[in-house]
Amino acid sequence: MARTYDVLTMGRSSIDLYANDVGAAFVDIKSFAAYVGGCPTNISVAAQRLGSRTALLTAVGIDQVGDFILNFCTNEGIETRYSPRKAGHRSSAVVLGIEPPNKFPLTYYRDNCADIELTIDDVLASPIADAQYLLVSGTGFCKEPSRSATLFACEYAQRHGTTVVLDIDFRPDQWHDARAFGVTLRSVLRTVDIVLGTEDEINAMMMGEDNTVTLTHSQVSDARVSGDVDVAIDTVLGMGPQVLFQKRGAAGSRVHVVTPAGIDRIDAAGFPVEVYNILGAGDAYAGGVIHGLAHGWSWHRAARLGNACGAIVVTKHGCANFMPTMTDIEHFIGMHGDL
Amino acid sequence: MARTYDVLTMGRSSIDLYANDVGAAFVDIKSFAAYVGGCPTNISVAAQRLGSRTALLTAVGIDQVGDFILNFCTNEGIETRYSPRKAGHRSSAVVLGIEPPNKFPLTYYRDNCADIELTIDDVLASPIADAQYLLVSGTGFCKEPSRSATLFACEYAQRHGTTVVLDIDFRPDQWHDARAFGVTLRSVLRTVDIVLGTEDEINAMMMGEDNTVTLTHSQVSDARVSGDVDVAIDTVLGMGPQVLFQKRGAAGSRVHVVTPAGIDRIDAAGFPVEVYNILGAGDAYAGGVIHGLAHGWSWHRAARLGNACGAIVVTKHGCANFMPTMTDIEHFIGMHGDL
Amino acid sequence: MARTYDVLTMGRSSIDLYANDVGAAFVDIKSFAAYVGGCPTNISVAAQRLGSRTALLTAVGIDQVGDFILNFCTNEGIETRYSPRKAGHRSSAVVLGIEPPNKFPLTYYRDNCADIELTIDDVLASPIADAQYLLVSGTGFCKEPSRSATLFACEYAQRHGTTVVLDIDFRPDQWHDARAFGVTLRSVLRTVDIVLGTEDEINAMMMGEDNTVTLTHSQVSDARVSGDVDVAIDTVLGMGPQVLFQKRGAAGSRVHVVTPAGIDRIDAAGFPVEVYNILGAGDAYAGGVIHGLAHGWSWHRAARLGNACGAIVVTKHGCANFMPTMTDIEHFIGMHGDL
Amino acid sequence: MARTYDVLTMGRSSIDLYANDVGAAFVDIKSFAAYVGGCPTNISVAAQRLGSRTALLTAVGIDQVGDFILNFCTNEGIETRYSPRKAGHRSSAVVLGIEPPNKFPLTYYRDNCADIELTIDDVLASPIADAQYLLVSGTGFCKEPSRSATLFACEYAQRHGTTVVLDIDFRPDQWHDARAFGVTLRSVLRTVDIVLGTEDEINAMMMGEDNTVTLTHSQVSDARVSGDVDVAIDTVLGMGPQVLFQKRGAAGSRVHVVTPAGIDRIDAAGFPVEVYNILGAGDAYAGGVIHGLAHGWSWHRAARLGNACGAIVVTKHGCANFMPTMTDIEHFIGMHGDL
Repeated sequence: MARTYDVLTMGRSSIDLYANDVGAAFVDIKSFAAYVGGCPTNISVAAQRLGSRTALLTAVGIDQVGDFILNFCTNEGIETRYSPRKAGHRSSAVVLGIEPPNKFPLTYYRDNCADIELTIDDVLASPIADAQYLLVSGTGFCKEPSRSATLFACEYAQRHGTTVVLDIDFRPDQWHDARAFGVTLRSVLRTVDIVLGTEDEINAMMMGEDNTVTLTHSQVSDARVSGDVDVAIDTVLGMGPQVLFQKRGAAGSRVHVVTPAGIDRIDAAGFPVEVYNILGAGDAYAGGVIHGLAHGWSWHRAARLGNACGAIVVTKHGCANFMPTMTDIEHFIGMHGDL
Repeated sequence: MARTYDVLTMGRSSIDLYANDVGAAFVDIKSFAAYVGGCPTNISVAAQRLGSRTALLTAVGIDQVGDFILNFCTNEGIETRYSPRKAGHRSSAVVLGIEPPNKFPLTYYRDNCADIELTIDDVLASPIADAQYLLVSGTGFCKEPSRSATLFACEYAQRHGTTVVLDIDFRPDQWHDARAFGVTLRSVLRTVDIVLGTEDEINAMMMGEDNTVTLTHSQVSDARVSGDVDVAIDTVLGMGPQVLFQKRGAAGSRVHVVTPAGIDRIDAAGFPVEVYNILGAGDAYAGGVIHGLAHGWSWHRAARLGNACGAIVVTKHGCANFMPTMTDIEHFIGMHGDL
Repeated sequence: MARTYDVLTMGRSSIDLYANDVGAAFVDIKSFAAYVGGCPTNISVAAQRLGSRTALLTAVGIDQVGDFILNFCTNEGIETRYSPRKAGHRSSAVVLGIEPPNKFPLTYYRDNCADIELTIDDVLASPIADAQYLLVSGTGFCKEPSRSATLFACEYAQRHGTTVVLDIDFRPDQWHDARAFGVTLRSVLRTVDIVLGTEDEINAMMMGEDNTVTLTHSQVSDARVSGDVDVAIDTVLGMGPQVLFQKRGAAGSRVHVVTPAGIDRIDAAGFPVEVYNILGAGDAYAGGVIHGLAHGWSWHRAARLGNACGAIVVTKHGCANFMPTMTDIEHFIGMHGDL
Repeated sequence: MARTYDVLTMGRSSIDLYANDVGAAFVDIKSFAAYVGGCPTNISVAAQRLGSRTALLTAVGIDQVGDFILNFCTNEGIETRYSPRKAGHRSSAVVLGIEPPNKFPLTYYRDNCADIELTIDDVLASPIADAQYLLVSGTGFCKEPSRSATLFACEYAQRHGTTVVLDIDFRPDQWHDARAFGVTLRSVLRTVDIVLGTEDEINAMMMGEDNTVTLTHSQVSDARVSGDVDVAIDTVLGMGPQVLFQKRGAAGSRVHVVTPAGIDRIDAAGFPVEVYNILGAGDAYAGGVIHGLAHGWSWHRAARLGNACGAIVVTKHGCANFMPTMTDIEHFIGMHGDL
């Protein structure tokens, strides 16, 4: 029997306040545009705009910002009724400066936030078994009760034939110890089918006593993580997942697929664009990939759709609000080549 | 010997994100202007712009928002070097919708915030004894360690000949129980010389088993508090303070002064203006009053300056960023009467 | 109309585990006797055994230790039905070594404890207005919600004609900053009629930027606090209380009473005994004083009863379980003099 | 090269206060014996007394109870220098009533406790790679930072050739949700070589949406957990561990060993004794098993030693303090059969 949803995304959501004064130092910003964000929420919007049927399992507070987030998602056509309000907890917020090409100073408002309060009961009330894919993000594992609820959701999904996709979503300042990220994510992989991440994120999953995270820029742009990404990818694929989508920025992406004969590597070329704001591009990619897979596309074609989505969003100001529709994709592709 | 500062203000600070879409429902807001706010911070800016020499004792996190707040205040000429950074704590933020004349939906981001981490050691490192006035706000008493640090500051000020001004600053959602606000503020009054507040705030200070706070609108506009404000004022003046400035909105303000012969009541008429955003008007009033008192003005003239400052800010979009200079005041007065 | 209770005591309670191996170093203790303790709970037992009618407003967890505490008090004849159970919080415990004459190493188990969760609603549900005296302890002010609830109780008592007695109960490790103890207690005094304390405790109430607490022994015996106790006493009596009982150990106690003509000083001689365990002796004293006052005795006679109670308990192993009855007092007095 | 330690045990420790009034209702207890306890600490003592060389990685507070715990272990010959003191955290305590044969009412004092503060840095400072076995307990996974530190320790051990033993140690009241226990433990199994547990504990590890924990007695005796234990065992052995020791109470124990040909089941008969206090018997068993394995014994003989240790301790009053030496074992065996 057909499932009601192509994908259920689980995890954080936020009001994203992005500087309108592009290029200005943070202290000189005069106004911020108000968008919706948060990795799983962005991915939900991305997939929905491409034509997927999506549901969102996040949590917000009993506050105006919660209204703002859920209202936006509902207007997008996403099913939000499984996302609870958490009394005594605040909807998340992010305040962001934009200094292209590589400086995006970021302040998270996630102390006592609502989305980390997702529980196993919230998971059991959600339609995981009625979705083709479950998308979770690494940040969902940073604190309890979200950590065990997200792990429970992955197990539950696999038991009910729902494919589990993990967006690594490495946010070092959300963890008490960056090494805890590595060891926690590794313990999660047994319940994951497909992994998506940048090279830094894939290396971050391998962090142990030897690796070093360069966190200097973690609140300014992406965290840099040293390591041999090729070794890391094969290690990940030995721990549960059968597929890994390696996001390579301007170079596009590479899909690593476990087969009986070994690991297939499929390269999907990127689209050349000028970077305006990298935030959200990875989530756009994930939305494209999931939409493609949910509709039976090949690994290569799904990855190319992801690349196109990411390329479009990297030229835009915000995250969720700028996800492309399939019409946008067709127009973009027409200019830049083909899927 | 002359003191270096006219006033040291102690307590909260924030980035204030105010809807640019005036009149829009919160969920429809497209962008927010970025200002600085927080009762004692606003008052510092107000007094400084009028010509007072001010210092600020707030605390911010090690984050970009903290830079934003301190940079603004420093640029205003306020001494900010006594305001510490609190590792592991976040600079406060406020997100606000603006639906004049009376709906200002507000979401505070103050979980684990930096300014509530002010300690007795921070107080001892600040130049209280070198300021003519110490201004504290009621919210500074809501949680430890700020609560005992603020109380300590008041005692210390009185012992060193610094006049203590309390802005009641009733923010019910910052307290675990609204009745705790009343009983705590009453226990503070013995260390206070001058009180400033609206009628609702003065009633809130009297809250016990009988009073009722109408909190329905507390996150949308001011909280309504029932009670007999005239009885409340005289009660307050029997508990330590010698002067109370009663803010009466469009009706201006009334100064209640304890004298050997009883309590003098001095009315200072308001200035008729159209309300645009009430947030910050009370802080502008406080800045005007303190500036007047610090410069030897009469109660009536100080209250009229306060009224003028409040009237100007009530027609503006934000708080700190819109405080008038003495030139603005002279221009405004020229149109509306006289101090 | 007569009131149902002579005294309602409010605040902490605990299971007190006291070394049976008297004189042994803590690490060599083999077993602990199980008693009930906690300043206000001890005082309730002391007064009840002397013949007063008492009620107890403490809180315990939903655990066996809570059963132990309440069962003991109920068996003593104390009304315990106003003492709530606090789900998710633990009944307090104390583990104590006994090395007479002056070493009593102490470990408090009060993290997340139930009795600090007393609320204003718990106060309003208790029979304060139906008691002649309300006894509160300084530790009740260390953390919220107990802090504002205890302050509320004091105000409520005074408004309803119930005399408020404060046992200073200085426990420095229950405060985030010892100076916060001083400034908080000073803000409480306006709602207090009678104060009881040792010289160190009276000095502790005066702590500000100058005083120094010698906390070296705070977990081993009483905290030492420097200061001029005579100045401190007169300061306290200028801040609200009309009477102060100064506990002077072997020297007995001195009652300081505000009169129109100045402060009367009444000395009540001590009873010479050998110290076995000082813990609880002060609470026995308080129970004796309150019993005397509640039955119309003179200051001197009430203080002498307190001295006798304290002297008896100082020769005993524990606190609440060893409080003397009036028969014990008469027997003791017969050997040592007269009240 | 030979390793310095036969086993490093990691996790909780406590002062165990066990009723001396055996058979009395909790509220009637007059005194408690003071022992040392906590699953990994008990196991360390058990193995050390049998002749193993052990080190302990627990944490205690800066308090007398911490001295008590470490002093006992040091006197036993256990290496305790890797166990840090955690400022601001309290050494754990347990208060226990004893009503044989099956009622052991238990109150944990573990709010803000020191041993849950073990960090990855503490792990890296410990001699895991210099021990033949690492023993961890399920409770070590209940909260951060202990959770990720314990997981990190398991990974680190396996990478350095140290065999990882997990004592399931199911303590439902230490978890925010009993189902979080199941899903967390399952995610840990990939880093575990040998599992030890009772049938209820093995079922608890399988808890998901279907299983039901009967927690009614969880603070009174063992928690009852429904489920098909045989299915559970084989599931566990499919998730990483190669060996599972099933503790069967009076019936002895059964060892399940993964072999190329399937799972071998080896029964080790129990020793008939009268139950006095079940607490600690399982830890004695673990100590015996690990001692046997570390000295090259067969599965059967190690399990029989475990059975003998457990049988001896079940007739005793406490945990760590009553662990048998090899001489005790020989004497016991002489009366009851053979290993």
